[in-house]
Amino acid sequence: MEKKTNQLSRGEACEFLTSHDNYVILLHAQPDGDTIGSGYALAYALKKMGKKVRVLCSDPIPPKFTYISNSLKVEEFPEETVVAVDVASPKLLGSYEAEYGKRVDLCIDHHISNLKYADNLLLDADASANCEIIYKVIKELGVEFCKHIIDGLYTGIVTDNGCFKYSNTTVETHLIAAELMKMGVDYAEINRIMFDTKSRARVKIEGMAMDGIEYYFGGRVAVITVTRKMIEETGCDDGDLDGINTLSRMIEGVMVGVTIREKKDGKYKISLRTNAPIDATAICAEFGGGGHPRAAGCEFSCTLEQVKQRLNVVIKEALEESGCLI
Amino acid sequence: MEKKTNQLSRGEACEFLTSHDNYVILLHAQPDGDTIGSGYALAYALKKMGKKVRVLCSDPIPPKFTYISNSLKVEEFPEETVVAVDVASPKLLGSYEAEYGKRVDLCIDHHISNLKYADNLLLDADASANCEIIYKVIKELGVEFCKHIIDGLYTGIVTDNGCFKYSNTTVETHLIAAELMKMGVDYAEINRIMFDTKSRARVKIEGMAMDGIEYYFGGRVAVITVTRKMIEETGCDDGDLDGINTLSRMIEGVMVGVTIREKKDGKYKISLRTNAPIDATAICAEFGGGGHPRAAGCEFSCTLEQVKQRLNVVIKEALEESGCLI
Repeated sequence: MEKKTNQLSRGEACEFLTSHDNYVILLHAQPDGDTIGSGYALAYALKKMGKKVRVLCSDPIPPKFTYISNSLKVEEFPEETVVAVDVASPKLLGSYEAEYGKRVDLCIDHHISNLKYADNLLLDADASANCEIIYKVIKELGVEFCKHIIDGLYTGIVTDNGCFKYSNTTVETHLIAAELMKMGVDYAEINRIMFDTKSRARVKIEGMAMDGIEYYFGGRVAVITVTRKMIEETGCDDGDLDGINTLSRMIEGVMVGVTIREKKDGKYKISLRTNAPIDATAICAEFGGGGHPRAAGCEFSCTLEQVKQRLNVVIKEALEESGCLI
Repeated sequence: MEKKTNQLSRGEACEFLTSHDNYVILLHAQPDGDTIGSGYALAYALKKMGKKVRVLCSDPIPPKFTYISNSLKVEEFPEETVVAVDVASPKLLGSYEAEYGKRVDLCIDHHISNLKYADNLLLDADASANCEIIYKVIKELGVEFCKHIIDGLYTGIVTDNGCFKYSNTTVETHLIAAELMKMGVDYAEINRIMFDTKSRARVKIEGMAMDGIEYYFGGRVAVITVTRKMIEETGCDDGDLDGINTLSRMIEGVMVGVTIREKKDGKYKISLRTNAPIDATAICAEFGGGGHPRAAGCEFSCTLEQVKQRLNVVIKEALEESGCLI
């Protein structure tokens, strides 16, 4: 018989957290601000309740987030209770999937796509960040919000909604931010680290990429190319290339933003960002890829020139069909 | 005898607005989101109260803000009451200073540096944006918040605090944003226009500037140069260059960010951004300039190479004195 997930109210989740101990908190692989903020804020809160806690992630915490994780003392204890935060599917546990994927006792998540793999689930798909749910849980647990907790929660919230910029931001998001500010969160410094800090390598490759943008179809299509040569010359790592796919769609008049990234194996990874009504998925599906209506991807094994030619044939059709190119 | 400003409470300012009519609302020159949002939101509110209003600015409203200003019908009427919004000094009225500088009946402002030039002044220096004050005034006036008002107010708020990113953001800022969201402000689209839209010319010159950054003193100093040739090649106007001064300080490890901009007359305009403890004003003062501790400017009439040499001598001393360069 298939396992059935028990959907909990926030009150029930708090009862669960109060009545268990010896916690392992699991973050998703390639951890972002929201899973890190969620996991560590909850860990600090459980510690304050006298529980034993460790936080596990299959990938290292990126250096810019270590101000959140650094203060949690690592303890040895026999683990009893497994909690996953911001993890929609056991696959996202990365290398920890095999060990923990089938024995998560409680999952706290805000993804509507959550696979309900855990025994118990606290899900709020209206929360712009999982940290909003964790905020409410900690409040209901009656634990005092220390600096570590509020910094973690604020970080998770702002990194998941572009600092209140994107459409997932809600009235509640602002009200929680106001509460965290009353508690003294170091918001200006957190935002400086998250949004206004770039590595020299990133600045260099972003400059090269922006300087080299090619436009097609009267500026409706912008193509950014990131070659291995550029990556090697600038010394960029994967973190440095984060979000580079979003640059092209920011340009006035661009309906289809294409980012072509040369992989180590010589193949080209394509990331497509579109403005309505252009369907990014339909274009990428022509080349065996997929994704969402406004953001999709695919891959090519041919020369760079051929990539551009093939893509432009299909993009031109999509522009014509939607009436964006006459 | 010198004119004495009458400092008003919000209630008194509302009484003033209710008991007068035939308004001219003045914005500051080179208008930004906050003065435009303040002026037009107040204008729409006064119209709803049955008053006659026009809004004046010595410079045109930039195209990206015209969704705020477009819906105010221009009427002819004999002007009686002059209100200035977000205007700290009569000088900032630009070409309207001569006509109106000495006869502003009411100024609504959030700058602590306000020169108290108006007959009546509603000042709240704790407001991150002047639009926060206007929001409270309109609420107290009991006027219904229509789409034009809420879009204008939200725009003013987010443009003055970097979308809740900077240290001037307050608890109140978030609470007002939450109220405007409840009223249905189109926040995601406004933020897309304000923060995630760049002209092709801007993208090109930003790419050239970032690609060409020079580093000195182990990466503690970053120098961005914007030449006339770059400006002409890319077709940038002044608006396209907005905020380009802030790029250099975003780079990891940079203590002093220098932006050198070649002017039409061949002189070089320097903008200096520093991280604590480096005093930008002290460095610029060596060359007859000035500003704030973290942002200052000066000008040079020599070759580009000489500009860099002279600046670097003084910057090196400042780095050494502060212990940032040993």
